Amino acid sequence: MAEESLRQAFVEKQAAVDAQGDVVRRLKEAGALKQEIDAAIEVLDGLKLQKSSIEEQLQAALGSNDGAAGREAFRQAVVNTLERRFFYTASFKIYRGVAGLYDYGPPGCAVKSNVLAFWRQHFVIEENMLEVDCPCVTPEIVLKASGHVDKFTDLMVKDEKTGTCYRADHLLKDFCNDKLQKDLSISAEKAAELKHVLAVLDDLSAEELGSKIKEYGITAPDTKNPLSDPYPFNLMFQTSIGPSGLSPGYMRPETAQGIFVNFKDLYYYNGNKLPFAAAQIGQAFRNEISPRQSLLRVREFTLAEIEHFVDPEHKEHPKYCEVENLEFLMFPREEQMSGQSAKKIRLAVAVSEGIVNNQTLGYFIGRVYLFLTGLGIDKNRLRFRQHLANEMAHYAADCWDAEIECSYGWIECVGIADRSAYDLRAHSDKSGVPLVAHEKFPEPIEVEKLVIAPVKKELGLSFKGNQKMVIEALEAMNEEEAMKMKADLDSKGEVDFYVCTLGENVVIKKNMVSISKEKKKEHQRVFTPSVIEPSFGIGRIVYCLFEHSFYVRSSKVGDEQLNVFRFPPLVAPIKCTVFPLVQNDKYNEKAKEIAKSLTEAAISHKIDITGTSIGKRYARTDELGVPFAITVDSEESVTIRERDSKDQIRVTVEEAASVVKSVIYGQRTWEDVWSRFPHHSSESTE
Amino acid sequence: MAEESLRQAFVEKQAAVDAQGDVVRRLKEAGALKQEIDAAIEVLDGLKLQKSSIEEQLQAALGSNDGAAGREAFRQAVVNTLERRFFYTASFKIYRGVAGLYDYGPPGCAVKSNVLAFWRQHFVIEENMLEVDCPCVTPEIVLKASGHVDKFTDLMVKDEKTGTCYRADHLLKDFCNDKLQKDLSISAEKAAELKHVLAVLDDLSAEELGSKIKEYGITAPDTKNPLSDPYPFNLMFQTSIGPSGLSPGYMRPETAQGIFVNFKDLYYYNGNKLPFAAAQIGQAFRNEISPRQSLLRVREFTLAEIEHFVDPEHKEHPKYCEVENLEFLMFPREEQMSGQSAKKIRLAVAVSEGIVNNQTLGYFIGRVYLFLTGLGIDKNRLRFRQHLANEMAHYAADCWDAEIECSYGWIECVGIADRSAYDLRAHSDKSGVPLVAHEKFPEPIEVEKLVIAPVKKELGLSFKGNQKMVIEALEAMNEEEAMKMKADLDSKGEVDFYVCTLGENVVIKKNMVSISKEKKKEHQRVFTPSVIEPSFGIGRIVYCLFEHSFYVRSSKVGDEQLNVFRFPPLVAPIKCTVFPLVQNDKYNEKAKEIAKSLTEAAISHKIDITGTSIGKRYARTDELGVPFAITVDSEESVTIRERDSKDQIRVTVEEAASVVKSVIYGQRTWEDVWSRFPHHSSESTE
Repeated sequence: MAEESLRQAFVEKQAAVDAQGDVVRRLKEAGALKQEIDAAIEVLDGLKLQKSSIEEQLQAALGSNDGAAGREAFRQAVVNTLERRFFYTASFKIYRGVAGLYDYGPPGCAVKSNVLAFWRQHFVIEENMLEVDCPCVTPEIVLKASGHVDKFTDLMVKDEKTGTCYRADHLLKDFCNDKLQKDLSISAEKAAELKHVLAVLDDLSAEELGSKIKEYGITAPDTKNPLSDPYPFNLMFQTSIGPSGLSPGYMRPETAQGIFVNFKDLYYYNGNKLPFAAAQIGQAFRNEISPRQSLLRVREFTLAEIEHFVDPEHKEHPKYCEVENLEFLMFPREEQMSGQSAKKIRLAVAVSEGIVNNQTLGYFIGRVYLFLTGLGIDKNRLRFRQHLANEMAHYAADCWDAEIECSYGWIECVGIADRSAYDLRAHSDKSGVPLVAHEKFPEPIEVEKLVIAPVKKELGLSFKGNQKMVIEALEAMNEEEAMKMKADLDSKGEVDFYVCTLGENVVIKKNMVSISKEKKKEHQRVFTPSVIEPSFGIGRIVYCLFEHSFYVRSSKVGDEQLNVFRFPPLVAPIKCTVFPLVQNDKYNEKAKEIAKSLTEAAISHKIDITGTSIGKRYARTDELGVPFAITVDSEESVTIRERDSKDQIRVTVEEAASVVKSVIYGQRTWEDVWSRFPHHSSESTE
Repeated sequence: MAEESLRQAFVEKQAAVDAQGDVVRRLKEAGALKQEIDAAIEVLDGLKLQKSSIEEQLQAALGSNDGAAGREAFRQAVVNTLERRFFYTASFKIYRGVAGLYDYGPPGCAVKSNVLAFWRQHFVIEENMLEVDCPCVTPEIVLKASGHVDKFTDLMVKDEKTGTCYRADHLLKDFCNDKLQKDLSISAEKAAELKHVLAVLDDLSAEELGSKIKEYGITAPDTKNPLSDPYPFNLMFQTSIGPSGLSPGYMRPETAQGIFVNFKDLYYYNGNKLPFAAAQIGQAFRNEISPRQSLLRVREFTLAEIEHFVDPEHKEHPKYCEVENLEFLMFPREEQMSGQSAKKIRLAVAVSEGIVNNQTLGYFIGRVYLFLTGLGIDKNRLRFRQHLANEMAHYAADCWDAEIECSYGWIECVGIADRSAYDLRAHSDKSGVPLVAHEKFPEPIEVEKLVIAPVKKELGLSFKGNQKMVIEALEAMNEEEAMKMKADLDSKGEVDFYVCTLGENVVIKKNMVSISKEKKKEHQRVFTPSVIEPSFGIGRIVYCLFEHSFYVRSSKVGDEQLNVFRFPPLVAPIKCTVFPLVQNDKYNEKAKEIAKSLTEAAISHKIDITGTSIGKRYARTDELGVPFAITVDSEESVTIRERDSKDQIRVTVEEAASVVKSVIYGQRTWEDVWSRFPHHSSESTE
């Protein structure tokens, strides 16, 4: 609202400045008195002052550009460190790279595999999930059934002269944002219109996008050439399976389909019991039109997906009580619609008030929260945002994204969706193999079934050629309609009946249809399970973790700025470094002894026997996020330094590896260790 | 030799039988005396008897068909168990599958990820390797440089009527094997010819393969239609990167290239020091013409590759002494050529005698041996086979395959190759980025360099248009040639010189070229490192592990055959099961308590509270290779059963998880535990 009235005021003040400018000019032309002219100029200056005051307020309301610049500078600092220390790099760099493809170098690869190992522990092992491993190469029929062949597209426009491709919605989005941020002279109405476009961007059809692009005169960003109309581009990498060239295939866009097509075997493996969850970690591929935002939008990425199959009538979860008291930032649909922001909600409240659709969905939201914060994601920059009605697939019962805030804004890192029975039904239909579950009743139960039996002879006599449509309409009645008709026929003998395929009422007589309820014994219920799907974009989580872990501190000596990643030991690429304080055969020997014990304890470590100053060696490994450093400064005892506090304790050579091990495996905290071993002070070393 | 003379004898005896048959027939036609005919028949019968005796001996010499049938039956038993218990299955089965693509179900996936975790521990962590993670999608230029675009092909033939594709060498191989095994009437010469074809199969050109197929009259196996000439089919899955359709790409056929193109950054990351090793685990893709042998030849598979970069002048390895005393089956080139079999050799002997090219190669052979036997591969069915000269790439210095024997024969599971500088040079040339290492000399050293300076003016006068070729030939002389020419010119004034590009001798005079040696100071040596590459086919290792771990035993009661996988705890998909002996709330409660402790210790387990008999529950989990079962038969104490011995000990409820944990993590052996806890006998339970 503030922004709107400020825009209004700005436009009005600009008009007033222009008008007063005209007054001054006309006075000058007419050769008016200097006194008169000066007075008019004074008014003009006053108006200009007021205008620039409004301009300042408006810029402040639009979100300080300083903030954006700060975020940009922070990102540059993180990315520089990440690339310099080879956490990641553009793939195939010596051949000038390929947009949207990245390599993880040694520390990045270690962080990623630590994240995956924790994921496996936290979800697969803890929950006894059924992990599977399916190929990336997928035949067309599977992705036809899932809808990807027809609908997994983005709208694309081409530079009409050079043929360069752009995502149509990106161009429109950039145009609107740019206009809103930089053009202060647009009217409040225009601003509102642009904001509306941004809000409905994901819902626009090719035609709507095209006409907006034309209306706003948007051209190719690089050349200013005109653009083609938008048309859909399928985002799957296509290939051909086998030598014949006759079997089209795709690189899977998600891992989930591999689980769905195996439902029958998985259900059998689980003793034909529900609920159970299957899980898969693997590569997925999306041939993005124009990849952006480094690791956040890439053409190949690692997904970790869970498909939890559940009886749609029993979405409670036995371990729900373990997470229900968690409280964290949630952003329900209603708060988004009414312009509020995310707020802390206790999970139990969200579930019991129906904000979150069911217990199982709630359970996974809680588990995802524990997973992400366990990795080191800042809980104040993590929120669970509910999908708006227009974002959700028509079949989905409810959907929440775990969004993490980083320098690019709030980024969807985990999607947690109740997809109902959609996927299993789609594959049942396409393959002809029923993907269903059974619930055996303890005893056969008697059910009443509605039986509608049209009497064809009578109907034929009355309706001739229309007979078939009348019969279909009768048979399509639900229980309520049928019982009402039965009652009416019993009481009145005939009844008016609307046949939608004929578009008119017909008269049904008592002898034309028999309606009754019959009792039947049923031994089991056959149904398609619902699936609740938490889907993790591992690369996105890793990137956000990099940003949340990064900070800069000054060195004690000199004014150098030192970079640190505060990775928890669980995630740290290297858990421990071993430094002989000075170059010396005896110290080197002790360092190697300690390194050997660390190897035996399966603790990844690095030994650095260069003569570099110990302060520099600490700084070097702080930049890799190594949580502990063992420095050999005597033959009997060594120091252990903790990265963030820079505190050091003294332990014997023999103890060193086991103390580090106990902290890394979470058997003790650093505070524990700190209170039990002598402290070592080393003002001079850093 | 036995086979050869038996074939000869068989053919001769067959001829004798035929001739005597003619004799009998002619006697009958001529109305000879019954006595005379009977005598001739008696001779014939004698010859037939002799023939079938030779036939038997020949069949025995060809390798008993019983053996082949036994292997086939064993494989069927393993594969049935693997598929029934969902270790793996054909991918996309509900859509009738795709040849060469398999899904790992829960136990198979767990085995595979345990193998990979051990690989990471045994190689990456133990050796401080630099692990990287690069995309599967690869632009064409990278695979052009590596040679895959031009040479990664198999020769294919097509059924000329139906268009069905076959691998040309497979058809020829099948024909030869079939003929040798089943057609006893072929001559010894013919048999030798077919064996020769099998031996040189991999070296045959398209033309040679085609002419053999024609000569033998080989037709399409399914239809007996004629076949096309063989032509190369590239085995890479092709795709297109980005929306333009102008950037061809492939799914990588190996992970190694991702490491090579990052050499510069890796070398820098390692402090510009050699040697170091980089490693990568990931998917690789080969669009096989006709996949066979289930998990052994597939279209998508997991590779784990190591590229160990080393100074070509220093191929010693600091940790070589840790493996040099290992002794295992090796199959050097010479033993293969002279028809001997693999023999046990101590690694130190193989390296010092030059059978294995260098220490580093030897070190990795030893480490691979420890890795595979650590997983549970039978060391008597594991051999290291050296590549023959014709198998090896021209640039390779030496190459050994770790081959594991399974029901399909000896299968290459790990390749360990010294690829010299080939790969780095290829990418340096193509990209223009030098992928080299530097060795700084402690002090600058003086080197003598050969300088050949052709005198263009004089050469131009004498050779006119051929001048350029003469100059090139002069400059291309090596030191020895140049110094000889210098001596000859000094003594004789002129010399005959062969210019290969001209194909003739020319006369070089003293004034046409100046040859000298100059001294220069050099500060460092710049060189392309050699790379030693151990490359692991994880799926093949896993399949062989399944076969080596499988056995059948009889149940105590009844005659049932029970299947067991004797996986070591390291590899077992589930480490422990928890069974309440009878259905009972108190026992169930205790079982859940124990399960919780196992979860906390990160031990994958399964709790089975079905009322099934305990014997059946044991049998069920033996089939999954679960090494330990905890049975709750009281509220205070429980039993722990070891899978292979079926021995049981009794421990308290509180101890149960920690005892299992200590054995699983190798802190104690089962023998240890067996000697320290009371035994429990349970004749009746199994």
